[in-house]
Amino acid sequence: MHLRKILFTLTVLFTVTARAEFKALPDKVPTPADNPMTPEKVELGKMLWFDPRLSIDGTISCNSCHNVMFHGGDGRPVGVGIHGQRGGRGSPTVWNAAFQTVQFWDGRAPSLEEQAKGPLINGVEMGMTSHDFTIERLKKIPGYVEAFKKAFPKEKRITIDTMAKALASYERTLITPNSPFDKYMKGDKKALNAQELRGMKLVDEIGCTSCHTGENFSGEGFKMGEGNYQPFPQIPGSKYDKLYDITADLGRYEVTKKAEDKNKWRVPTWRNVAITAPYFHNGKVKTLDEAVRVMAKTQLDMDLKENQVADIVAFLNSLTGEFPKQQMPQLPNTVNMSLTPEP
Amino acid sequence: MHLRKILFTLTVLFTVTARAEFKALPDKVPTPADNPMTPEKVELGKMLWFDPRLSIDGTISCNSCHNVMFHGGDGRPVGVGIHGQRGGRGSPTVWNAAFQTVQFWDGRAPSLEEQAKGPLINGVEMGMTSHDFTIERLKKIPGYVEAFKKAFPKEKRITIDTMAKALASYERTLITPNSPFDKYMKGDKKALNAQELRGMKLVDEIGCTSCHTGENFSGEGFKMGEGNYQPFPQIPGSKYDKLYDITADLGRYEVTKKAEDKNKWRVPTWRNVAITAPYFHNGKVKTLDEAVRVMAKTQLDMDLKENQVADIVAFLNSLTGEFPKQQMPQLPNTVNMSLTPEP
Repeated sequence: MHLRKILFTLTVLFTVTARAEFKALPDKVPTPADNPMTPEKVELGKMLWFDPRLSIDGTISCNSCHNVMFHGGDGRPVGVGIHGQRGGRGSPTVWNAAFQTVQFWDGRAPSLEEQAKGPLINGVEMGMTSHDFTIERLKKIPGYVEAFKKAFPKEKRITIDTMAKALASYERTLITPNSPFDKYMKGDKKALNAQELRGMKLVDEIGCTSCHTGENFSGEGFKMGEGNYQPFPQIPGSKYDKLYDITADLGRYEVTKKAEDKNKWRVPTWRNVAITAPYFHNGKVKTLDEAVRVMAKTQLDMDLKENQVADIVAFLNSLTGEFPKQQMPQLPNTVNMSLTPEP
Repeated sequence: MHLRKILFTLTVLFTVTARAEFKALPDKVPTPADNPMTPEKVELGKMLWFDPRLSIDGTISCNSCHNVMFHGGDGRPVGVGIHGQRGGRGSPTVWNAAFQTVQFWDGRAPSLEEQAKGPLINGVEMGMTSHDFTIERLKKIPGYVEAFKKAFPKEKRITIDTMAKALASYERTLITPNSPFDKYMKGDKKALNAQELRGMKLVDEIGCTSCHTGENFSGEGFKMGEGNYQPFPQIPGSKYDKLYDITADLGRYEVTKKAEDKNKWRVPTWRNVAITAPYFHNGKVKTLDEAVRVMAKTQLDMDLKENQVADIVAFLNSLTGEFPKQQMPQLPNTVNMSLTPEP
């Protein structure tokens, strides 16, 4: 038996003994001390979120890939940025991202604030030439100058940091409570049916919840090494490695360049997973049942029976929450002129 | 003197004698007898409007180019469709489009319903392979099947026609009343300042309103030949023809192939024109003051003084209306699967 497999089996056994502690989604999100939420920041962040002028040619907003009207992702295998460029990874849902301890598939940002700064200046995504250029453009839009003053009354200037704080504040409003699972956890024992309950028991017994822990099922409070990073595949060599091109992207290794981080990833959330297909970092798996089969085999070395797959899929469907109603922002205009000429 | 110029001078003289009848924006939009507005149709149309799954690869929605949160256009010279493809013309604002008697720059659609069917199957825009394919995709989304039943209870199937009717119904909610101009027209004589009133008088006196007539300033009720089509330039030969590449696109001629339609265009609206830069069919003019200079020269053979340009720009700014608050739709999901694989 492969040493890694033996060690992992021991880990799973230990976890199964310890049992996962299922948790309902909290009513409030964690908020950093230096960025308390205010209605003014949230409103500013919402405008910025939807503004395509944050991309060089005015075609891509945050919402283009993380569509809050559409489960928070784009429903595609990989994101698409300026000039039709395809990114390397799928667009993770922004809904409930506020509960994650790290952001991006490879966890390279420790907060929503840091995450927000990345895509702006990524040449494949929004393609702004620099953060300074981004701020210079915002300063030409009188409505933003005013909105920043209201949101950050002590700041004399618009900066990339206040911009990121506003975006993060808006993202912290994007949570989906009251899934059937949450109702069940809060005492409504009829909220889950027999199949969903079988699935809930099964994901715990076979070890899925050794990684998918916490209120967001994305490993909150679960620390291994430097963070929540897990190898995918945990047990290499299954047919799925090649079928879905699992190992081509080295994941966390691309951030740290440490050999032990090859093919490691942040644990993705299970919340709303039923509506955020396609699956995995490269979006190559199109259906949830297949994603369950892949995970069982590559992470737990298990060939699930089809009724087990169906039970787990039923449970995962019970994690689809309620999307709060939101008012559309109206983006501030530049009067008598355009800001996004063809670059 | 060029014969065309003489004829046009006579037209202007006649118009100036007749004087434009300025009209406030009506509270209600014209609605075709076979598509009465209902809340269910509007709600369905709003979902469709924002749904990127109406494009082949799930990247472009109606709202990508006609952004209702952002003055109804995209703020760019020309629209951008799937795979980063640049269209040939600017994206006209959808706000108040319901008042236009024809749609598209070249007027090739006689109604919002007909207009809605075009971009879906345009290879540069949304790139769906056919209307049938579009409907087949919608039928796979349970939430749409239900929403179509509610919106069209007598229809047994989803069709391209009911889809277009729903989109048009939503677009008919997109009107911007209560501009300073509208307030003035309704009796608030302080709503326009002295400069704006000078501009209002000037656009009438010099003949701008011989084409920019009606409540939308887009030639409603103004019929010439087969419709509202006007040559641009009216008087060829100015420096602007080459400077802004005005004549390369043959406009209405591309629809009719009649020689007399070369370089003819629908009269574009003045409403919200101050916030919908850049200007003209090819988006080559970046500022409103320059657009005024170009129009005066190419259409009326006038070299305006700078104070006249400023007065007209001031008046045009008074046509920026109020954008009603809207709730974001939540797009219906496909459960456990994705509908937009990489094509």
